[in-house]
Amino acid sequence: MRVGLDIGGTKTDAVAVTDDGALLHRLRLVTGSGPEAVVDTAVEAVRRLSTALAVPITSFASVGVGIPGLIVPGTGRVAHAVNLDVEELELGSILESRLGVPVTVENDVKAAALGAWQLLDGSGTMAYLNLGTGVAAGIVRDGVLWRGSSGIAGEVGHLSVDPLGDRCSCGQRGCVETMAAGGAVGTAWGGTAALPVLELFDHADAGDARAIALRKRLGHGAAAAIRILTLTVDADDIVLGGGLTALGERLLVVIREALAESATGSRFVASLQLEQRVRLVPSGSPVAAVGAALVGRGESSHG
Amino acid sequence: MRVGLDIGGTKTDAVAVTDDGALLHRLRLVTGSGPEAVVDTAVEAVRRLSTALAVPITSFASVGVGIPGLIVPGTGRVAHAVNLDVEELELGSILESRLGVPVTVENDVKAAALGAWQLLDGSGTMAYLNLGTGVAAGIVRDGVLWRGSSGIAGEVGHLSVDPLGDRCSCGQRGCVETMAAGGAVGTAWGGTAALPVLELFDHADAGDARAIALRKRLGHGAAAAIRILTLTVDADDIVLGGGLTALGERLLVVIREALAESATGSRFVASLQLEQRVRLVPSGSPVAAVGAALVGRGESSHG
Repeated sequence: MRVGLDIGGTKTDAVAVTDDGALLHRLRLVTGSGPEAVVDTAVEAVRRLSTALAVPITSFASVGVGIPGLIVPGTGRVAHAVNLDVEELELGSILESRLGVPVTVENDVKAAALGAWQLLDGSGTMAYLNLGTGVAAGIVRDGVLWRGSSGIAGEVGHLSVDPLGDRCSCGQRGCVETMAAGGAVGTAWGGTAALPVLELFDHADAGDARAIALRKRLGHGAAAAIRILTLTVDADDIVLGGGLTALGERLLVVIREALAESATGSRFVASLQLEQRVRLVPSGSPVAAVGAALVGRGESSHG
Repeated sequence: MRVGLDIGGTKTDAVAVTDDGALLHRLRLVTGSGPEAVVDTAVEAVRRLSTALAVPITSFASVGVGIPGLIVPGTGRVAHAVNLDVEELELGSILESRLGVPVTVENDVKAAALGAWQLLDGSGTMAYLNLGTGVAAGIVRDGVLWRGSSGIAGEVGHLSVDPLGDRCSCGQRGCVETMAAGGAVGTAWGGTAALPVLELFDHADAGDARAIALRKRLGHGAAAAIRILTLTVDADDIVLGGGLTALGERLLVVIREALAESATGSRFVASLQLEQRVRLVPSGSPVAAVGAALVGRGESSHG
């Protein structure tokens, strides 16, 4: 039995799975902010899973943690997890000493990519494109996560596709993230709604020209990321996940329209059959937590 | 002993190598145009290697062919080799029946990527970025070529990085290829020089403002491709090859300047240390022919 945790900015999703990745139990906790609270939340989640399954914590073969931020491959060190107010944290070794179980730490989008492969029956090359507060992708081939030499594989959100585009938080102009990330789109939309992108879509449906333009730009940004993932790693299965996918088909339609538009003027782009490569992760599917559990299974340890 | 052929638009580069990829012999022929002439050139190249090495053709364990155009992975079929005036050709099976030796066919840039890995002591993830008539990349990880599901992995030349850029031959606007390919840059420069990009660089050195702008755009196009290869597959070793690299350091300086410029405004881009990831393939190095020979060694056959 293995544990997977998806530590997000507001909630932590925790699962116990079999060695084959089959789901045994799932629970959710509110995530605390700052290094100590993040560690405590993780420990508490594992404790509750052990209680729910009536087994001791040490019976878990491993705990895998998916967390936003940069994780240098092969270490349990988290850096720049801005949403969690964590600048740097030796999460792997601290959790190991608290739990007495091997712990592996992975970037949450990369973990979700592996979980999507597991839960959605991946084959060939799958790219998991996360449209959340930011934009990033995880790449899985034949069931194995592509991390890259320095852990930045799949960071397509910070590729510029428009030299005159909006300034990105990373300092560049026209990054995919300025067009298609929930954070940037919400800021561009403004307003006071709790879910600004949902409000934006509602206003676009009602005919608001500015909302229609921002929605269209969102589609074009996601479509650019999809073309990039196709023409670099030739992903034949591009799974969309992240907070924005709560919009479901309403989001997919917008992205498909942008893909179709880019294919209209180019036989080459048309030949890529981009619309057929894209699908949504089912709403509420615990891809990141299950993926984190699979990371713990042994592709690599943090040691 | 294995044979590798790099069939280019004007010349065919032929090598015989050991099973370990060590070079035994090399010769060059003028390539004929059209399907029949391409086949005849390949057969003639293998014959001459057998004569030079004083061994029968059937003593070659395999013949690998690198050729421009689309090769569906696992087939010996070439499509759209425009420079060779070949629309479609069953090159693998025809050559096998003419030579009596197993033949494998691979896209020339992908073959060159494998050859660069061999000849330049690759490690980790290497991207071979070909700046020739067009722009394309080949990706090699741990010595294995990444082909992708449909053979389009690495086709970064047709990613748009500027919605207001020049119209590309593929129908899109602002593709990397419109900025950094020898063909497009030469057309934009105009003139009657046999080597228009060389003339452009000479004029830029002499202070011609239009030449300076086109040279700068070339650098920015190549830099965009390098950022794409870094933030998708996290290539830590990006080798530049293709016809434009005959410009040597004059080209590398321009690309390094564009990389440095993109890092100036962005701590994130600066952290990628892009300038350190890039190097030139040594001029005249038979990367594509050696790579073709290695493809023949057995990653996959055309059957």
